[in-house]
Amino acid sequence: MNKQVLLAARPTGFPKESDFEMRESAVPAPGDGQFLVGVSYLSVDPYMRGRMNAQRGYADPVAIGEVMVGGAVGKVLESKHEKYRVGDYVVGPFGWQQYAVSDGTGARKVDPSIAPISTSLGVLGMPGLTAYFGLMDIGAPKAGETVVVSGAAGAVGSYVGQIAKIQGCRVVGIAGSDEKIAWITGELGFDVAFNYQTTADYAAKLAELCPNGIDVYFDNVGGAITDAVFPKLNPLARVPICGQIALYNLEKPEMGPRLLQLILMRQVKVQGFLVFQFAARYKEGLAQLTQWVQSGQLKYREDVAVGIENAVSAFLGMLKGRNTGKQLVKLSDL
Amino acid sequence: MNKQVLLAARPTGFPKESDFEMRESAVPAPGDGQFLVGVSYLSVDPYMRGRMNAQRGYADPVAIGEVMVGGAVGKVLESKHEKYRVGDYVVGPFGWQQYAVSDGTGARKVDPSIAPISTSLGVLGMPGLTAYFGLMDIGAPKAGETVVVSGAAGAVGSYVGQIAKIQGCRVVGIAGSDEKIAWITGELGFDVAFNYQTTADYAAKLAELCPNGIDVYFDNVGGAITDAVFPKLNPLARVPICGQIALYNLEKPEMGPRLLQLILMRQVKVQGFLVFQFAARYKEGLAQLTQWVQSGQLKYREDVAVGIENAVSAFLGMLKGRNTGKQLVKLSDL
Repeated sequence: MNKQVLLAARPTGFPKESDFEMRESAVPAPGDGQFLVGVSYLSVDPYMRGRMNAQRGYADPVAIGEVMVGGAVGKVLESKHEKYRVGDYVVGPFGWQQYAVSDGTGARKVDPSIAPISTSLGVLGMPGLTAYFGLMDIGAPKAGETVVVSGAAGAVGSYVGQIAKIQGCRVVGIAGSDEKIAWITGELGFDVAFNYQTTADYAAKLAELCPNGIDVYFDNVGGAITDAVFPKLNPLARVPICGQIALYNLEKPEMGPRLLQLILMRQVKVQGFLVFQFAARYKEGLAQLTQWVQSGQLKYREDVAVGIENAVSAFLGMLKGRNTGKQLVKLSDL
Repeated sequence: MNKQVLLAARPTGFPKESDFEMRESAVPAPGDGQFLVGVSYLSVDPYMRGRMNAQRGYADPVAIGEVMVGGAVGKVLESKHEKYRVGDYVVGPFGWQQYAVSDGTGARKVDPSIAPISTSLGVLGMPGLTAYFGLMDIGAPKAGETVVVSGAAGAVGSYVGQIAKIQGCRVVGIAGSDEKIAWITGELGFDVAFNYQTTADYAAKLAELCPNGIDVYFDNVGGAITDAVFPKLNPLARVPICGQIALYNLEKPEMGPRLLQLILMRQVKVQGFLVFQFAARYKEGLAQLTQWVQSGQLKYREDVAVGIENAVSAFLGMLKGRNTGKQLVKLSDL
């Protein structure tokens, strides 16, 4: 049988377990031009919260009763597709389920000799590409500049800080536990970092940690942390907006400080991006990320829940910031 | 004698006549490497409001008792500078006064055979360059796109809309009187426009006038108008932030809608700019603007107050949006 997680209800505010539903259905059979994947790892990511809403964001909402969307990696078990053979590893938008049929749309083969296949959902996948293009193309960091990263111990944030170090920047991380701070300033080599959960005055802390101001702010979170960062931006600073997780679960929009006058006076560039806008350059990004991973300059950590029964709690925990590094759900050892 | 307007007090909120003071002093004599200018036209611009504050913005504040800063154009009356001769026309940061001594810093000669010298403060000067680089470089409009311009009947806004038309865009203007709307949609060729003073629901009006959404928003004003524009931005829209005049006279900062989540979801680029960042390319900009003015594709209007005694009222009127086109103060027929 194929265990699947469906969207059962549209959440108001923070999602609950009851917004999801588990279903068992028959393992599907691939038609012509299709293949069947047995999923090994499922990715849970912040963007999925937006797909649970009724309003269209950058993509259509998941319908009630439909399998939750999400990237996954696994092995081809049957194939009527000319490019995929039984035994191939493949990553793609297979959803929250144990088995999926695909025609190859949005999928690509994964070479398990390069790195563990789980990395195709993390450092060598969408989050890695998000960090790479967002920082390098929009952030455009120069050696000696100060780069601040929020959500710094999450998947994207942890890669961003290390890539900024590779570029010769001074890197300041913001994360939500002392253990995360120890990891990013220890193993990952961030210059300094602070725990926003135990820091009363973000502005004062940023002033202390960024004596030369901030040249690049890679924003994963939004809200009060971002409010404190903006006034420290230097002239001609760049702000890639990658996530606003602090806002995703608000029941109604909140007001905030007006930023545009500061953006004007400091000649700041603020740019929202989705990794898809760089689709034509994924190959370049993956080649560079792979080289950094293989040389040991880019480290990664995976936070792995086990069993599809734990997908929802892994997702909710990730929204609460419980994970360190990339949150995955392991479904099988296929 | 040299009549000068000094900053007498730092305004709180909207400036008053009493924040300025008129002084008469001796006409200065140029030293070696300097020249004396008799000013014909003085420019009053929104940025000057920021220079009246105690806090440093992108430049130092004007000190109390100091001549107000500002661009002006006039004739060289005496010269000990090797590049400037008596009778040359010159534009530069000569301040609010009838006569100024300059060493040439920030100054350039003006050729009166190309266009009236007053244009060196408007369409062929800083406001023209601001419109040109802000729209072309940051806005990057493509033919067929919808460009919305706020402050559309001011100097910069009136040029931006026309340059966008030259690029083949659909241009929507926002201005503050029916007379201004008639001018920008008539003589200047904007496709449509609305008077924000007599429009109750900006969002509904924008939805009506921008059926295909908004690809470029050139913002001169900020505040409630800008709040209404952002939700109409299309994916990959560009927002050059040129001015936020609605906020310059607030006694304390106000809160507004948080924009970053929308910026993320729509992959919008918001970029604040000051014309100085394009200084290396002024020659290119002036050449293009001059060509458009000479071909009749780029029209301009000047709102001219007469006499230095009227500089303050012209400045305050400009901050209130009383001018149509470029606000100037004519000091002499030199």
